[in-house]
Amino acid sequence: MSLPSKDNFSEWYHEIIQQAEIMDIRYPVKGLYVWYPFGFRLRNNVYKKLREIMDREHDEVYFPTLIPETELRKESEHIRGFENEVYWVTHGGNDPLDVKLALRPTSETAMYPMFALWIRSHADLPLKVYQIVNTFRYETKHTRPLIRLREITSFKEAHTAHKSFEEAEIQVKKAIEYYKEFYDFLAIPYMVIRRPDWDKFPGAAYTIAFDTIMPDGRTLQIGTVHHLADNFAKTFGILYEDVGGEHRYVHQTCYGISERCIAALIGIHGDDNGLVLPFEVSPIQAVIIPIPYKGKDEVVREASKKLANKLSDLGIKFVLDESEDRPGAKYYKWELKGVPIRFEIGPKEVESGEVVVSFRDEKRKFKAKIEEISSEVISRWASEMRERMRKKAIEMMKQKLVYPKDVDGLKELERNVAVISLCRNRECGEYVEEISKARLLGWLEETPWWVEVKEVDSCIVCGGKGSLAVLAKSY
Amino acid sequence: MSLPSKDNFSEWYHEIIQQAEIMDIRYPVKGLYVWYPFGFRLRNNVYKKLREIMDREHDEVYFPTLIPETELRKESEHIRGFENEVYWVTHGGNDPLDVKLALRPTSETAMYPMFALWIRSHADLPLKVYQIVNTFRYETKHTRPLIRLREITSFKEAHTAHKSFEEAEIQVKKAIEYYKEFYDFLAIPYMVIRRPDWDKFPGAAYTIAFDTIMPDGRTLQIGTVHHLADNFAKTFGILYEDVGGEHRYVHQTCYGISERCIAALIGIHGDDNGLVLPFEVSPIQAVIIPIPYKGKDEVVREASKKLANKLSDLGIKFVLDESEDRPGAKYYKWELKGVPIRFEIGPKEVESGEVVVSFRDEKRKFKAKIEEISSEVISRWASEMRERMRKKAIEMMKQKLVYPKDVDGLKELERNVAVISLCRNRECGEYVEEISKARLLGWLEETPWWVEVKEVDSCIVCGGKGSLAVLAKSY
Repeated sequence: MSLPSKDNFSEWYHEIIQQAEIMDIRYPVKGLYVWYPFGFRLRNNVYKKLREIMDREHDEVYFPTLIPETELRKESEHIRGFENEVYWVTHGGNDPLDVKLALRPTSETAMYPMFALWIRSHADLPLKVYQIVNTFRYETKHTRPLIRLREITSFKEAHTAHKSFEEAEIQVKKAIEYYKEFYDFLAIPYMVIRRPDWDKFPGAAYTIAFDTIMPDGRTLQIGTVHHLADNFAKTFGILYEDVGGEHRYVHQTCYGISERCIAALIGIHGDDNGLVLPFEVSPIQAVIIPIPYKGKDEVVREASKKLANKLSDLGIKFVLDESEDRPGAKYYKWELKGVPIRFEIGPKEVESGEVVVSFRDEKRKFKAKIEEISSEVISRWASEMRERMRKKAIEMMKQKLVYPKDVDGLKELERNVAVISLCRNRECGEYVEEISKARLLGWLEETPWWVEVKEVDSCIVCGGKGSLAVLAKSY
Repeated sequence: MSLPSKDNFSEWYHEIIQQAEIMDIRYPVKGLYVWYPFGFRLRNNVYKKLREIMDREHDEVYFPTLIPETELRKESEHIRGFENEVYWVTHGGNDPLDVKLALRPTSETAMYPMFALWIRSHADLPLKVYQIVNTFRYETKHTRPLIRLREITSFKEAHTAHKSFEEAEIQVKKAIEYYKEFYDFLAIPYMVIRRPDWDKFPGAAYTIAFDTIMPDGRTLQIGTVHHLADNFAKTFGILYEDVGGEHRYVHQTCYGISERCIAALIGIHGDDNGLVLPFEVSPIQAVIIPIPYKGKDEVVREASKKLANKLSDLGIKFVLDESEDRPGAKYYKWELKGVPIRFEIGPKEVESGEVVVSFRDEKRKFKAKIEEISSEVISRWASEMRERMRKKAIEMMKQKLVYPKDVDGLKELERNVAVISLCRNRECGEYVEEISKARLLGWLEETPWWVEVKEVDSCIVCGGKGSLAVLAKSY
């Protein structure tokens, strides 16, 4: 088994998921996958960060997986958005159920009937909860591990309720900041994009999405933040009594991140040799490889053990690979798993009290005094590595960006991401989609520094007032 | 809202689940409940311990929720055991599915087809994995939060594979030790009972269960450990190549604990005033209540803040209740939530640098010097409290136990748990069930010290060789 070149991204992704033991794709139902132990440790490390961010101002809850059809159908726009993708439970044992039960595609209609009971007065607001759950989509398109699945195993969904549209909007901005922090932590660059009004979350007032660019030039939606206004509140009767004694509808937001964050982590940072993982989330943070040398095996082993004890004291998750494999085979194995720091110790290093250090993301090797390795040193290495990973990812994304100045320039987008000036009219939006055969992701809420266009021109279709829009093939 | 007396256990349980904000029972589907933030924090604290125990020798994984009918039906005994309780997904959107999908009632049939791919040689054994997932049972009987539900939200299931029946049996014994550690940590007494052969897990060679006694005299099964022998291995073709090159079937075990552990925690330790929670798992570990006194409010507040800072430094999850409520109302509120340690500070305490301390499980109050409160002191308080809780729980259970010496004594068991001498024949087992109108839980694997019978007589039905059996009404 060897990994295909990452230039052939689709094959590379398919293989790395299996070979690095992220997921087993052989489960006997299309679109359902098994998390291997290694993959699940990575998942847990990443979600620990997400949870830490959420816990700052949200309470964790758990709502049922099964939603009665009657509730799911209450919000008419919402159900239209999900109708074709919902899995239906129709039987318990051999009995048909009185009311069909949907496997939650998302939890608005499970939660909001309860919110109507939980919220009585302004003192109950704001309400901010989240849960990390499995959700289900009957995908008929091509499925792909972590990206397009029938059981999303790790959907973090937050739901909030507020006194007014404005307060909910402040929450939208906070959510965007939280998600930025999360993706910065993972060294994953993103664009914050307002979806077209005709492509927003079903039932929302507007949707802001996080999109990143995968190595094949397709964008991947890795997070969404929705302002729901009082749309669901009206459907589910979520009212509060304000200070004056009047009853008003709450304004709501919801925002979610799924295991696509892991897909982005793998897809963006990985290389021809395997995973490249940030130190903080890597299931194995360091590997020690003793380099045997005739007659010196014992001293090499001792020095390796000493280093192992040190890493242990520092609380680092490491492997001391004393297997019979040759060093080359060991490099190969741990590179595939994305281990960020590799230590090699041979007879020369033993003599000088040093160790050869290299990082997963670069070719450079250097020597370090074992006694000088400390928490501070490791932290510095980790954050320098993250910085390099971020820069490299941004470089990759910059190469995918094109800046057509007229509609003709949209005709041969191929696997590029186009940043154009576009007005907000649906006609113009649909026109550029038709010409480019790509999807209009929407308009940049803020322009990342690595998007080069600084001045916004008029709409490249109608010449009206434009703002920066993004067109791409998307997953 | 006030809590009914715990003497009326069923009502008390129903009320405390709501009033202490463990679960909201108003979700619009029978048998499905919503975890409130407070309840979910308790759940997370308890499962953190369970996870810590499992992580010592199991890898965490995640298998799909949806099991194709074809796999579920492969093991004929197994499916017979679950057939009437399985929820079936029959439609995706408006399309009928080719193969019906079951919502996992438990994951043997999801996991074992993959084990057949994962296990190749003796070097792959033992395999030990676990997952914490939601599982589903179409319950037609009376449902009850945490005890009998249609979506079990927090099922910890471990699955292991070994080279031989004997090695799997060693794992069974280890699992029993792990579960003992877990329930000792929660101060929940248990009986380790071997289920009758005709009442074991469908597909198992034998089943060992953990049963505890609830305050109404009904037993609650709070854990099970199954030896599966090579039954499933034969069905799913799980073979390994031994050192000699021969292919052999693995022998398997599985063992599980659900949120019934939380039901036991609440039901056994709680009292007329609310929850009583062990310090280690309580979402709020301490409360500080300033006792106001005209003209001294400021110094009392200052002293309370000082204590709060101290608890904060010690890493204790506490509340400083400075609300407008009167002290009595505050006591009531935090007792309901089971807060283990209460600190009260009035003007007298300020003068002497002391604080009034009381514990949730006893009436006693005493004074302690604030400066002497340390991690060690808190740890000692916590472990003494746990010891008291355990003793009290055992006392309660002892009172429910009866020791009939003949079958006549079984006729009026009512809400007692009978320990009798019984042989292993099915006829005798079914006879005592018929007479007592209770369930034969099985035979004690080991006799807890608080079960008084030491000598085992002959079977009280047939006079054959008996061993200690337990009969009870069970949840």
